[in-house]
Amino acid sequence: MAHLTVSVEYAIHCLLWLAGSAGAPLSSRDLAELQGISQSFLAKIFPKLEKAGIVVGSEGVRGGYRLARAPAEISVLQIVDAIEGDKPLFDCQEIRDRCAVFGDAPPVWATAGVCAIHAVMLKAEQAMRDELAAHTLADLAVTFAGKAPPEFILQVQDWMTERAGARKPGRQSKPEPPS
Amino acid sequence: MAHLTVSVEYAIHCLLWLAGSAGAPLSSRDLAELQGISQSFLAKIFPKLEKAGIVVGSEGVRGGYRLARAPAEISVLQIVDAIEGDKPLFDCQEIRDRCAVFGDAPPVWATAGVCAIHAVMLKAEQAMRDELAAHTLADLAVTFAGKAPPEFILQVQDWMTERAGARKPGRQSKPEPPS
Repeated sequence: MAHLTVSVEYAIHCLLWLAGSAGAPLSSRDLAELQGISQSFLAKIFPKLEKAGIVVGSEGVRGGYRLARAPAEISVLQIVDAIEGDKPLFDCQEIRDRCAVFGDAPPVWATAGVCAIHAVMLKAEQAMRDELAAHTLADLAVTFAGKAPPEFILQVQDWMTERAGARKPGRQSKPEPPS
Repeated sequence: MAHLTVSVEYAIHCLLWLAGSAGAPLSSRDLAELQGISQSFLAKIFPKLEKAGIVVGSEGVRGGYRLARAPAEISVLQIVDAIEGDKPLFDCQEIRDRCAVFGDAPPVWATAGVCAIHAVMLKAEQAMRDELAAHTLADLAVTFAGKAPPEFILQVQDWMTERAGARKPGRQSKPEPPS
């Protein structure tokens, strides 16, 4: 198992599709099917991205999600934090103040400042976060665009248009509520 | 919950005590009691450190664990990997090859090389690992020694000696087997 959940991977992939949709909302149901991932799983991811101000949901037959701001303004770190909830690398339990020789009264020197171990972990966490913050959705989109042939983008657009067209007005395609 | 488990914190704290024991083995039972942490929990941590070649266990009444090499030769990264098992930051599921428009035959361009998202995660992970590798047990021991008054070290040595002296030859204090 990895430190970051698969939800982060799904979120970034979906956001890349939204970055390429030229502002048109895409339904989470279509995005799930397009990418071969679970609809119910994805339905739990989008509300987190919406709460973090990364996407905006709209209701209705042609509803769905679109980016709330430009891809260059959305860092990988912001997406990770939206999904993982700013989970720390290390959660210091401050066991330094439990030393048996202190009895019930740990001295001030023992608990003053940040624990040396925690300080190293904070530096490592910051190095990781700095790197994640240095890459945006726009950077990823450029890399992707450099790999995918133009006809692929058109194929996906056709696929999305076909799906939206096949959707009857009676069928709801608004963003799924968080479960 | 943090990315790194509390076992990492316990392991580093214990190794700091071993770094200060001048080569004398310390029992995991005493280390647990000294620090106010669970004996059974700690008994699962030491075998991982031993397997990784960070500590060496010895049996007998005065047995226990000692460092397998100098504190300056033990990095925080090595301890984290010993406990967490080289857990990756991100486990790419390669969902890029599942795109519905590919059918069952994703084209070569879609799956060639490392996924752009995965590449960013690998950079972030490397930045974190570089920082953890840059700090050793010796560095932490120096920081700790700069905080703790000399009498504290003597108090702990007395506490350990008392514990070892009170241990009867019939009582086993060898390293606990992994459970």
